[in-house]
Amino acid sequence: MKILKNQTLSQLLEQVDRQTDQQANQPEVEAAVSEIIANVIKNGDAALKAYSQKFDQVELDDLRVSQAAIDEAYQNADQSLIDALNLAKSNIISYHKKEIQNGFVDAEQPGVVRGEKITPLAAVGLYVPGGTAAYPSSILMNVIPAKLAGVEKIVMVTPPQKDGIGQAVLAAAKIAGIDEVYQIGGAQAIAALAYGTQSVPRVDKITGPGNIFVAVAKKQVFGQVDIDMIAGPSEIGVIADDSADAKNVAADLLSQAEHDKLARPMLVTPSEAFADAVSAEIDRQLETLPRREIASASVANKGFIAVVDNLDEAFTVMNAISPEHLEIELADAMQYLNQIKNAGSVFLGFNASEPVGDYVAGPNHILPTGGTARFFSPLGVSDFVKRIQFVTYSKAALKKEEKAITTLARVEGLEAHARAVEARFK
Amino acid sequence: MKILKNQTLSQLLEQVDRQTDQQANQPEVEAAVSEIIANVIKNGDAALKAYSQKFDQVELDDLRVSQAAIDEAYQNADQSLIDALNLAKSNIISYHKKEIQNGFVDAEQPGVVRGEKITPLAAVGLYVPGGTAAYPSSILMNVIPAKLAGVEKIVMVTPPQKDGIGQAVLAAAKIAGIDEVYQIGGAQAIAALAYGTQSVPRVDKITGPGNIFVAVAKKQVFGQVDIDMIAGPSEIGVIADDSADAKNVAADLLSQAEHDKLARPMLVTPSEAFADAVSAEIDRQLETLPRREIASASVANKGFIAVVDNLDEAFTVMNAISPEHLEIELADAMQYLNQIKNAGSVFLGFNASEPVGDYVAGPNHILPTGGTARFFSPLGVSDFVKRIQFVTYSKAALKKEEKAITTLARVEGLEAHARAVEARFK
Repeated sequence: MKILKNQTLSQLLEQVDRQTDQQANQPEVEAAVSEIIANVIKNGDAALKAYSQKFDQVELDDLRVSQAAIDEAYQNADQSLIDALNLAKSNIISYHKKEIQNGFVDAEQPGVVRGEKITPLAAVGLYVPGGTAAYPSSILMNVIPAKLAGVEKIVMVTPPQKDGIGQAVLAAAKIAGIDEVYQIGGAQAIAALAYGTQSVPRVDKITGPGNIFVAVAKKQVFGQVDIDMIAGPSEIGVIADDSADAKNVAADLLSQAEHDKLARPMLVTPSEAFADAVSAEIDRQLETLPRREIASASVANKGFIAVVDNLDEAFTVMNAISPEHLEIELADAMQYLNQIKNAGSVFLGFNASEPVGDYVAGPNHILPTGGTARFFSPLGVSDFVKRIQFVTYSKAALKKEEKAITTLARVEGLEAHARAVEARFK
Repeated sequence: MKILKNQTLSQLLEQVDRQTDQQANQPEVEAAVSEIIANVIKNGDAALKAYSQKFDQVELDDLRVSQAAIDEAYQNADQSLIDALNLAKSNIISYHKKEIQNGFVDAEQPGVVRGEKITPLAAVGLYVPGGTAAYPSSILMNVIPAKLAGVEKIVMVTPPQKDGIGQAVLAAAKIAGIDEVYQIGGAQAIAALAYGTQSVPRVDKITGPGNIFVAVAKKQVFGQVDIDMIAGPSEIGVIADDSADAKNVAADLLSQAEHDKLARPMLVTPSEAFADAVSAEIDRQLETLPRREIASASVANKGFIAVVDNLDEAFTVMNAISPEHLEIELADAMQYLNQIKNAGSVFLGFNASEPVGDYVAGPNHILPTGGTARFFSPLGVSDFVKRIQFVTYSKAALKKEEKAITTLARVEGLEAHARAVEARFK
């Protein structure tokens, strides 16, 4: 892996900044997606079936996957898979339960009650990609926070497959407690969820990753529905020193490199010797990796090891990167929590290998990528609720604030605002 | 105002649905905005100054408004304005304080610590429109939640004016505690905040309303930075029966109608007599309203009174509308809180006139519009923080979950994920 040595901090930061540049617009994809959305709005199910034939080469009678097919997939699944999914489910529930917010009521001022009511979204749609990127674990990660939020209807869409939807995916859908599954994919599936068709219910929010058409469609329907973040290639940042095991750090870096040729495995360390050791380990471990073609490309083109002067610099560089996953492979790792300003999910210490978070730890694995951890959060319960404000006033309480209201209204040139309050006293 | 009588519930719902259709795409605006953003990224301050000359006919030496100018505006402001802004500030703080979330730590499983750290965004930008839509009250509503969240740098941008930035706006900026003010507007201001220039700092999130260029620019930079919701015309929905005062309800409806010709004043009532009385009151009150041209257009083209069979139907219709502001002008209004599923901010009872919420009540007045209250929330403290997950494992705790992790990793075809965990035990 490329080792960046003898660079100043500002040189490093500049390189990092260039790397996290946003992806370019793709006007042709935008136009194609617009057309698909308009067609689904106009023609509903007929458009969905036509696109399935055109893009997926599958002819569908029924867009919905029957409950019998879902039950059968669950019955036929290996017990070890069911056990693993159930352990994951239990840990995801116990973690996300702690995210549940209560509203509040405030009655501190005489005659005034103010408050906030936390209300679940009514319906949510989950996009599950087809093929090798259809991850059962992601179904749990998307659905469980929505369930805990109190969402009543959770719908899954996934591209139709010639030999039927993946059995592990359907088993996970059953374990997660998804209400309805539709075999539709691409931008047309996003359009169906955003606007509704004869078969597919309109939802309030769409979550889940997908290819470029899905990502562009989600961006286009944003506002008509809410969406989760726009997911980019996976990233792992590791801060480690000589006290870490180079073999483990290399293995963790490769665990994200195998996702995608554009995945970004990154190590920042104050130790040049450790940098060399990890680089050698990566080469060694790559040799026997089934997905070595993908992982090698990620390591060669997107990965780097940066050697810095000290741990403070390491944190500065890593906060500028704002990685999706961040491992702190240092002794007493927890003590560095304060220095972490930007990251999706943090793995502290020598045993918290990143894949533990992908599967069973409990924190969400739907995380902000591409530097967006500066401002986006992991998927969580709060993504599936909205806050509704409320206020009530006695006549006396309104009188007390009348002057302030009418003053501000008139400064802003909004006479009707002032008169609405004054009407109460006429 | 148009009165809809003798319609079935489904007829009413259909009409409501058509009305909340999203605004159409505007490809020319999109293209113009793309070009402006690219130019600001490339040419920084020089591009900003050129656009000020072109669009605002103002030649600028310094993009930043000096602290002296801000202090002077504050000194020169009327005491009644300062008092009103300070009352508003105090109530906005006491309300939004209750929204502050704590993270959590969970140590329920031996050897495992999981948690969530709530971290403020580092920098936030606020767009304040020029001209008559530059509302001092909105500055408080945007800035105070960010301050309470712990945001360290809060930057305001507002279009340059030939005779300088509005004094009330600068006074409000001072009271709100804004750190830096820049006189730039339009799509170019959004680009500057999203990417940074020589003078203007890059921020993590941009809030605040603006014209179509600002709205489109915000949508285009979404992902590079976070944005608040895309604001549409103001809306007020009122549910009232004979127990309410038609004069007050009419005045409240007009308070939102005066904002915009596209504003939507809406009343749903089970009483035909009350519908007629409110309609007559609106005509009467419109006569003397300074902004009657705007308000009349809103009432005539966008407003309606729907007469329904009973209050349950009224709530069904109103939840389908999902109004930005919702007034419940019924006796014992608080008891209906449960029936409200979709609304930005709710005003309960006969005295909670909507403008009380625009100015001094304390709940935010930056609210979801255009039906987006189905899934968006009022601006609040949670908009200015991100959640960072963390986890740490003992070796024994990792061993216990090894099998579940490796099973799921291999079902998903991700061998390097399995090996990363197994590496710890080799």
